[in-house]
Amino acid sequence: MTTTSTQIRLISRPVGEPADSDFEIVESELPELGDGDVLLRTVYLSLDPYMRGRMSDAKSYAAPVELGQVMVGGTVCEVIESRSPKRPVGTYVLAYTGWQTHAVVAGRHTRRLDPDSAPISTALGVLGMPGFTAYAGLLQIGRPAEGETVVVAAAAGPVGSAVGQIARVKGARTVGIAGGPDKCRLLTDEFGFDIALDHRSATFTDDLAAATPDGVDVYFENVGGPVGEAVVRRMNTYGRIPVCGLVAQYNATEPPVGAIAGPALMNRILINSLTVRGFIQDEFLADHHADFLADMTGWVADGTVRYREDVVDGLEHAVDAFRGLLSGRNVGKLLVRVG
Amino acid sequence: MTTTSTQIRLISRPVGEPADSDFEIVESELPELGDGDVLLRTVYLSLDPYMRGRMSDAKSYAAPVELGQVMVGGTVCEVIESRSPKRPVGTYVLAYTGWQTHAVVAGRHTRRLDPDSAPISTALGVLGMPGFTAYAGLLQIGRPAEGETVVVAAAAGPVGSAVGQIARVKGARTVGIAGGPDKCRLLTDEFGFDIALDHRSATFTDDLAAATPDGVDVYFENVGGPVGEAVVRRMNTYGRIPVCGLVAQYNATEPPVGAIAGPALMNRILINSLTVRGFIQDEFLADHHADFLADMTGWVADGTVRYREDVVDGLEHAVDAFRGLLSGRNVGKLLVRVG
Repeated sequence: MTTTSTQIRLISRPVGEPADSDFEIVESELPELGDGDVLLRTVYLSLDPYMRGRMSDAKSYAAPVELGQVMVGGTVCEVIESRSPKRPVGTYVLAYTGWQTHAVVAGRHTRRLDPDSAPISTALGVLGMPGFTAYAGLLQIGRPAEGETVVVAAAAGPVGSAVGQIARVKGARTVGIAGGPDKCRLLTDEFGFDIALDHRSATFTDDLAAATPDGVDVYFENVGGPVGEAVVRRMNTYGRIPVCGLVAQYNATEPPVGAIAGPALMNRILINSLTVRGFIQDEFLADHHADFLADMTGWVADGTVRYREDVVDGLEHAVDAFRGLLSGRNVGKLLVRVG
Repeated sequence: MTTTSTQIRLISRPVGEPADSDFEIVESELPELGDGDVLLRTVYLSLDPYMRGRMSDAKSYAAPVELGQVMVGGTVCEVIESRSPKRPVGTYVLAYTGWQTHAVVAGRHTRRLDPDSAPISTALGVLGMPGFTAYAGLLQIGRPAEGETVVVAAAAGPVGSAVGQIARVKGARTVGIAGGPDKCRLLTDEFGFDIALDHRSATFTDDLAAATPDGVDVYFENVGGPVGEAVVRRMNTYGRIPVCGLVAQYNATEPPVGAIAGPALMNRILINSLTVRGFIQDEFLADHHADFLADMTGWVADGTVRYREDVVDGLEHAVDAFRGLLSGRNVGKLLVRVG
């Protein structure tokens, strides 16, 4: 019987890019199962940009991971021991057990997955939190109308690629921004963006202007930094900016050089009657998650919405993979295959 | 018969605070009245912060006043000659004839006023554009709930004082910010704010924190600058910021020292799920102006909403009065009594 879990714990708060020395790998004793509990074996661990915030004790929308604690994260797991009748051994579940190989949790804190309806990994991506983030943020805040121009950065990632494809379903013109020619090719060939722009190109600002001759109606903000600024300058009157993430800024230790000043940003919001709305997907779960699952499962099944996964093997590579996520190394949903 | 109009024309674009030399006063021949036209004598000229934008050729939500043209502005006028049967001589009307003593316009471009139902000057203030700006921005964007905390700066002005009083009608706790003890006294004694804060006080930031122990749910942004920044830092999750004006920044020739950086502002929007929404009152006219007139006329009549006017005599003092408006010299709605 499994009695221990290999865990990655946060032991110091990263300054800038997370270093290996900010984490330790330890073997930890698992508790006994109580009534209703299950012992889970992690199959996939999801790596997501929000985790950078949890490593920091700066004010954010959720409490930081305490030093010495296991890094948090969504997981797809197999039940390998059970005292929960509704989660028998062999069941695959969605859980939030973090960066570790095993965990004991209450069965009711897991969501049962059906491996026959979709690959279990999609519960962490296109049919999971990133897909729902795209769906809710775009449709509830961005509200693209037919013929409007929707721009999204980090467009090869799980949120951005879903944003572009859902916007296309709604009849919008879609412009995706990503880093490098390979990702840009993926945007148009695989994800169906009308135009792909490489933010690493020296002509990016001009390319963006050329790609948005009628301005930008919806900018789904994943990245911030200079890319975000360039798009904000193209916004049309009554434009909407769902602010989902600012991944370009997460490792920043000081304000970016040449960044737009707050007063100038406010002025732009004023003169263009812009709506800028930060959000975390949780707030939309109660009202929109059922619609999401119905819509997105259908779109994935009929090929309307495609997705890519980038799977790294071995929990011991999680920290390095996470660094890559913040610097744009991966393509598609980043997962660690733990076991 | 009146055949000329005394006009204030813009002759150069102000850098920083508008100077006398940016304007000229000229006597201009009036055109003949065509069918449907009226000759108007200006009684009151409204001075409003948005006019600073019209003096500049920086991108804004409306075209600038061309050099050599009469400065624009809302007016209350008397019809002194008429070829419009619906606007007989002696009628008082709301018009947009700008900084001049007389004008010939189409009668249908004016709105008839009833001097018996409310003082005609209120058509430029509490029952006019400033009052509607407060009403629409607060109720359509700010959406204060009972018991929430609403903060407004420039709270002794026509927009801010209306915001506070409408918020109180909706059951919110209201905090008004103004410059100096006299205005602050007015906020609590006349306009019924729960708390008045003097932004000139050395302890302003601490005072604001003490006045908003539960944070800020709605910040009606009239001013920008350091005051706006201080309030933005107090916003609660799901807080709303209707961005109506940024008067503290209108004369700025360079970004304010110590101003919040755009990336930091975006981060705050993200982590607190804030809604920041620029607006111009026009967009709400079709759907909400009738409700506004009904509600506000009632509230003014029964004393629920009070207002103050600051009347300057003589068109020749308009430029100096306008400078005072931008620097916070006046109290209440600033009007020039032209004739």
